[in-house]
Amino acid sequence: MSLAPFGAAALNQTIIGEPGSRTRLETPAAVLDLDLFERNVALLAETCRKAGLHVRPHAKSHKCAEIARRQMAAGALGVCCAKPGELLALFEGGVTDLLLSAPIASPVKIDALARAAAAGGRISVIVDRADLIRAFDDAARRHGTSFDVLIDLDVGLRRSGVATPAEAVALARLVNEARGLRYMGVQAYQGRVQHIDDFEERRAGNRAMGRLLAAMLGALREAGLPPGIVSGGGTGSHLLDGEERLLTEIQAGSYVFMDEAYNSVDIHGRGGPEFEPALRIAVTVIGHSSAGFAITDGGSKSFALDGPPPRVFLAGRMVGRIEWCGDEFGRILPEPGFDTLPIGTVVECTVPHCDPTTNLHDFLHVASGDRLIALWPVEARGRSD
Amino acid sequence: MSLAPFGAAALNQTIIGEPGSRTRLETPAAVLDLDLFERNVALLAETCRKAGLHVRPHAKSHKCAEIARRQMAAGALGVCCAKPGELLALFEGGVTDLLLSAPIASPVKIDALARAAAAGGRISVIVDRADLIRAFDDAARRHGTSFDVLIDLDVGLRRSGVATPAEAVALARLVNEARGLRYMGVQAYQGRVQHIDDFEERRAGNRAMGRLLAAMLGALREAGLPPGIVSGGGTGSHLLDGEERLLTEIQAGSYVFMDEAYNSVDIHGRGGPEFEPALRIAVTVIGHSSAGFAITDGGSKSFALDGPPPRVFLAGRMVGRIEWCGDEFGRILPEPGFDTLPIGTVVECTVPHCDPTTNLHDFLHVASGDRLIALWPVEARGRSD
Repeated sequence: MSLAPFGAAALNQTIIGEPGSRTRLETPAAVLDLDLFERNVALLAETCRKAGLHVRPHAKSHKCAEIARRQMAAGALGVCCAKPGELLALFEGGVTDLLLSAPIASPVKIDALARAAAAGGRISVIVDRADLIRAFDDAARRHGTSFDVLIDLDVGLRRSGVATPAEAVALARLVNEARGLRYMGVQAYQGRVQHIDDFEERRAGNRAMGRLLAAMLGALREAGLPPGIVSGGGTGSHLLDGEERLLTEIQAGSYVFMDEAYNSVDIHGRGGPEFEPALRIAVTVIGHSSAGFAITDGGSKSFALDGPPPRVFLAGRMVGRIEWCGDEFGRILPEPGFDTLPIGTVVECTVPHCDPTTNLHDFLHVASGDRLIALWPVEARGRSD
Repeated sequence: MSLAPFGAAALNQTIIGEPGSRTRLETPAAVLDLDLFERNVALLAETCRKAGLHVRPHAKSHKCAEIARRQMAAGALGVCCAKPGELLALFEGGVTDLLLSAPIASPVKIDALARAAAAGGRISVIVDRADLIRAFDDAARRHGTSFDVLIDLDVGLRRSGVATPAEAVALARLVNEARGLRYMGVQAYQGRVQHIDDFEERRAGNRAMGRLLAAMLGALREAGLPPGIVSGGGTGSHLLDGEERLLTEIQAGSYVFMDEAYNSVDIHGRGGPEFEPALRIAVTVIGHSSAGFAITDGGSKSFALDGPPPRVFLAGRMVGRIEWCGDEFGRILPEPGFDTLPIGTVVECTVPHCDPTTNLHDFLHVASGDRLIALWPVEARGRSD
């Protein structure tokens, strides 16, 4: 006997296409507003096209093969992944052009990546040390395949990558000489500038990092190892990266969904976040507290809490904000003029931080207007390996 | 072709029982130290037995049927669940005595709970409003079964429950008259006192809530509706609840795993947390930053961040603390006298907050000494519905 094997999604599956189905979801449910999502995908593609930049969006934000396919249909070269498990889950989901954007240290994972390459994937990896270059080279040759390789440059994030031109050149030379590897260029992710709210401050921060990057690119060119790919950037910096003309492609992730953490960022210098809050978590008012507040059925197991609290929307109007109330619950603090919502009301909440929030959900409930129109599996949910 | 369908757990499955397997895990992996876990389960059982309290542990912390079974083998009456989906997943995992500790508002979920009761579950629910009593009664009768019912009392958490003796009596009377329901008593969860670090301050807080509870219990007895069950309490309060003699059973959850959020709580007034950090996340050093720090492969997708940062252990010794470094990574800040750990080293980290951390993992890697000895599925992972 199976009472509800896949959670809310199994129940919501039965109402796909029905008028008003979006307002009758079993909750908590991750909702993707398809119209806002499509607008976000088109805006980034267009902004980068005008700036002469390619797009290689970061799939760590969505972990969803269908979203990757739609990003590629809008012109993306491929997608980035933060972890081998995330990459392999998307490869199994049919996405074949994948860049692993962080170093790894597991021979088992390196071997699995080589098997994906041997099975037809175009697998790109980044390296920041000689032994990792040898390990990728050995694995590729063992499986009769090859990896595309970028040298990872540290332009200020202090997480991975080499920080000097000399090291970059030495590693590029090693890659260039390895028979199982193709030297393609560099990765330089300036993660710290993405969330600087003020446009001019962010521009200054991006320029400072650009100077470090320019020095390393110059050294590689002088050494006869000009990088064909210079990959980096993100949702916060992509317009500025177009001005700088150092990157060849942008790894933006959050732009597809957006979140409250990005909502205060003046992304294009016109005063706002530019991209729309396409990802929402639908929750239900499950009761009223004795103090008269509406209590909802989503807490830290449905939302990653590391960001400003969610705004609550009902029929397109903002009716309040969530205050967390345990790991499974929230309390709606109503906007002035709004009463406590009736028990049973389904509302949609923005998310504090989109990437780890998506990782909590097995399915995206794709909605347009008042209808639920599809469920998209989040294939790489939980794949942090 | 399936490269790694279940993530790290599928790879780790192959090394179960091997000497040293605990130090060779593919990561990130949730590790349950079996010896510490068993000590925690036995300590709570013994403390409550001495105080004349039953234990009905909260499964929201672990979401794992095997842990529920072991809690019951140690004397627990059943387990609590925070959500219908969590309850149904554990019921399908073979756990049959289940208390839903929060109100709900979905007819579909109420129906699913009644089906679980009809299929042999002893399903207890809490109510804090008349329409919910009617809905549970209707569903139970429709399926030819019944629910055990507790009246939910608000003793200060301001999330659910009625806050006056008169309301408690009115609802108890309604339940008592409903043919599909069995009036069993009350729930009174004093959530706000659990994390008060100082023992005497927590004792005072618990007493203040006890006075509210005592008034409501008195009114129910006077009305001829004496509660057989008075359910509440938690990891932080259980010893104090034994002094108060108002509760009949304890809903503690975190004690099985423990976390950094509880580590500062003087639980038994003897200066420490009493319970052991049985849940850890194993992570691997995947590289060294250009600043010379070890970078690990676990961030907000493997740990819930809402608590103090993890301590890092290697071979039983604390070697540092984690500083978060993006959603997938951490940086080890070494303890004085410790060098940067070599790339490839697997370390175990305590968790900031156990409940939402477990919810990120499909399996618990059960370890004893230096060996991985089993994988336990987290059946209700993601079941926030």
